Amino acid sequence: MLDVCLLGTGGMMPLPRRHLTSMMARYNGTNILIDCGEATQVAIKEKGWSFKPIDLIAFTHFHGDHIGGLPGLLLTMGNADRTEPLTIIGPKGLKRVCESLRVIAPELPFEIVYMEIEGTEQTFEFPGFRLEAFKVKHRVPCYGYNLVIDRAGKFDTERAKALPIPIRMWGILQSGEEVEYEGVTYTPDMVMGPPRKGLKVTYCTDTRPVPVIAEKAQGADLFICEGMYGDRDKQEDAEKKYHMTFYEAAQLGAQAQPARMWLTHYSPSLVKPAEYMDEVHKICEITEPGKDLKSITLTFEEEET
Amino acid sequence: MLDVCLLGTGGMMPLPRRHLTSMMARYNGTNILIDCGEATQVAIKEKGWSFKPIDLIAFTHFHGDHIGGLPGLLLTMGNADRTEPLTIIGPKGLKRVCESLRVIAPELPFEIVYMEIEGTEQTFEFPGFRLEAFKVKHRVPCYGYNLVIDRAGKFDTERAKALPIPIRMWGILQSGEEVEYEGVTYTPDMVMGPPRKGLKVTYCTDTRPVPVIAEKAQGADLFICEGMYGDRDKQEDAEKKYHMTFYEAAQLGAQAQPARMWLTHYSPSLVKPAEYMDEVHKICEITEPGKDLKSITLTFEEEET
Repeated sequence: MLDVCLLGTGGMMPLPRRHLTSMMARYNGTNILIDCGEATQVAIKEKGWSFKPIDLIAFTHFHGDHIGGLPGLLLTMGNADRTEPLTIIGPKGLKRVCESLRVIAPELPFEIVYMEIEGTEQTFEFPGFRLEAFKVKHRVPCYGYNLVIDRAGKFDTERAKALPIPIRMWGILQSGEEVEYEGVTYTPDMVMGPPRKGLKVTYCTDTRPVPVIAEKAQGADLFICEGMYGDRDKQEDAEKKYHMTFYEAAQLGAQAQPARMWLTHYSPSLVKPAEYMDEVHKICEITEPGKDLKSITLTFEEEET
Repeated sequence: MLDVCLLGTGGMMPLPRRHLTSMMARYNGTNILIDCGEATQVAIKEKGWSFKPIDLIAFTHFHGDHIGGLPGLLLTMGNADRTEPLTIIGPKGLKRVCESLRVIAPELPFEIVYMEIEGTEQTFEFPGFRLEAFKVKHRVPCYGYNLVIDRAGKFDTERAKALPIPIRMWGILQSGEEVEYEGVTYTPDMVMGPPRKGLKVTYCTDTRPVPVIAEKAQGADLFICEGMYGDRDKQEDAEKKYHMTFYEAAQLGAQAQPARMWLTHYSPSLVKPAEYMDEVHKICEITEPGKDLKSITLTFEEEET
């Protein structure tokens, strides 16, 4: 079960009823935040989630509207007596930028582990999930992310029974490790079916619509994609500022065929994203306008029935 | 006419319906901001005022809840095509702290002029008003501010008529400058009455109740004072964390006898500041609980009639 919340949907500057673009996900006790603009901590409070257990923050890039809320969030996490280390992932320069912002949050009761992304793609493995960073096309180095939860195959009791190992060893094989019994090695594939469909959330913002995005979002359970402008007249602005129109985002959706697609990172000049949906649906019918605190619980396939 | 708005009243961390403590004032086309925590720019938007014409930002101190919103505000001011220089005043280390935060706002279309406060008291003169900084008592160097608008005496037409100078020179004398006519120097005091009562707003936050505060707030038109805790049981916390209870703040009010007094900088644990007012009024009857966007227009005495 993966909970996803779009904490904010605003680009450039926070507005009274639109927080800056950020996403938070909770899976199996782990809390992941992607981007943290000014007042993201307020959005987390509004959602009713807690900042204390945020284990991982991933930054798409270092523009102020995506990272300005970091020192405040760190202070608040510190005030909540967090002591577990926090991992921060982001483009090259990550440590320099974060440490510079920490001029107002110099003393924290927890350690920060920085992981700078190398090259155009990099995968970071964590217990139970992985985060795939892939470079997109903005004015500055910027990455999209796939949050992926793999799911092992089904445990086959009949095949396990046929093996001469004691039942207490089944769990070890099920967890993906080998066991040795009476001089013979048994491997997980002897008792496990083929891997089942896991969960994938694709998140990308502040980019032109480059092909890698559709590739990465292929078949995602949820594709959260920037759409800076709804007005077709803003095509030139979108190109100049390295952003997308709703229609460009929808094209990516049509190519990637995700189960769900949410738009985000609206221009402050864009008041009612929903007004453009008729046009957007002609390109990609499942596209929904994201809004602050829009949330979903994604479940593994079998759990849905 | 001096407009004052308490943009936020929260201490430590921004909350869903409580912005961080900050004050904005507008006088004669000049916009002054005291403190700028995370999301202060949202509060300015909610008030309906503009950030573009902010000429002066004064910081009480460099704790995150008072300065975390600076880089975002600078970016937004830049996006609004501001080109006029911006003055920033604050304790020693001001430039280092602000420039460090500017890692995410490196390119701005306007210049920043830093003025670091020296010693325990310093007055900064600006056209039409002055800002008096005075050191208070917090865990780190922290200053309170008096925003003072002096008011010249009344122009005495009869006395001016008695002088042998042409009428076109009256305005020069009225504006406070000398004029020379037919070899004789005429000074403003020859046509102006004694200085009249101006306006004074005293602002202090993040401090223990030290005597200098009551001195500086003496007879203020508005005294905005921190009150972190309403609960009397929090006296020890207030002392330990270098803050004040409502009752300590009210004592300062009773000593200073301002025309109006607003409390601000509430602990996140304090939900309803108004609940404590009966007790507070026993000490200082005019005390009001500040709330986000609480505003007032202060006028010179004669204008009130």
